[in-house]
Amino acid sequence: MKKLVEYVTDIPDFPEPGIIFRDITTMLQDPEGLKLSIHELMHCLEGIDFDIIAGAESRGFLFGMPLAYNKSKGFIPIRKKGKLPRETVCKEYALEYGTAEIEIHKDAIFPGQRVVLVDDLLATGGTAKAAIELIEQLGGEVVKVLFVIELAGLNGREKLEGYDVDSVIVYPGK
Amino acid sequence: MKKLVEYVTDIPDFPEPGIIFRDITTMLQDPEGLKLSIHELMHCLEGIDFDIIAGAESRGFLFGMPLAYNKSKGFIPIRKKGKLPRETVCKEYALEYGTAEIEIHKDAIFPGQRVVLVDDLLATGGTAKAAIELIEQLGGEVVKVLFVIELAGLNGREKLEGYDVDSVIVYPGK
Repeated sequence: MKKLVEYVTDIPDFPEPGIIFRDITTMLQDPEGLKLSIHELMHCLEGIDFDIIAGAESRGFLFGMPLAYNKSKGFIPIRKKGKLPRETVCKEYALEYGTAEIEIHKDAIFPGQRVVLVDDLLATGGTAKAAIELIEQLGGEVVKVLFVIELAGLNGREKLEGYDVDSVIVYPGK
Repeated sequence: MKKLVEYVTDIPDFPEPGIIFRDITTMLQDPEGLKLSIHELMHCLEGIDFDIIAGAESRGFLFGMPLAYNKSKGFIPIRKKGKLPRETVCKEYALEYGTAEIEIHKDAIFPGQRVVLVDDLLATGGTAKAAIELIEQLGGEVVKVLFVIELAGLNGREKLEGYDVDSVIVYPGK
């Protein structure tokens, strides 16, 4: 049986020279790859007591929803600013160039809820850290932060210190 | 048992006066609502012979992935321009104000593949039509176009004439 990492396509020098882009679209395109990705993520959640899954737009949606479905939980979309129709809390965070803002509905999480945050990629950890802060601002407890892929060379785990972080595939580099 | 439509939150005068925004985040937040949405979509696919599911960024991701998982198919993300790392085909389409561009990997679909297109909302049908054209440009056959919500008053079905269009919830207005 193929391992999950074998479904990832490495694209050298994208988006800039020296960077290897890890493309998950070939994983999702293959029925076996897609299924395996969800099963490996579910495996990481074994024994974790949680109430709801949150995922950031837009690739967090890809993995968060099948996980929520399979675990019989709800799903909370964390979106780029201006897309959610009801009252939100918003967080600005730094990108390589400039900043971005994400937000979450104020009533998306109840105080004391145990939240699993899911995303496709842990790079510098900026988006995940901002998402965690939004969840905590609403009184949620982040009991797990789960990624399909981690680029260990970018030290995202340092930014998420103190949280239970798990990744299915870990690349040593950037 | 609650019906799916009861999990939708109506938000009057958003994003502008006279428009009722149909908010699905309350559906997804509730484990029963989320599960029911996927089951109703799966029901629409009964008897449909297809190879793969496609969904447009970002809310098409929410429903396309659990459907693909449950039907043991692959999933193809159709993305806003500039986000896919490999060779793509691109399509510009009209929005209410201005235009948008979506694209798909050139090798995402093989000629003759039978494709189901999934999205959360059928409004004017502009995004769906552009997505269909991309799929057909690659030689795919769109055998079903599936929505969670349809705003019948915006006549999106007319733009998708000739295709097998199905929606779980149909609102008569805009």
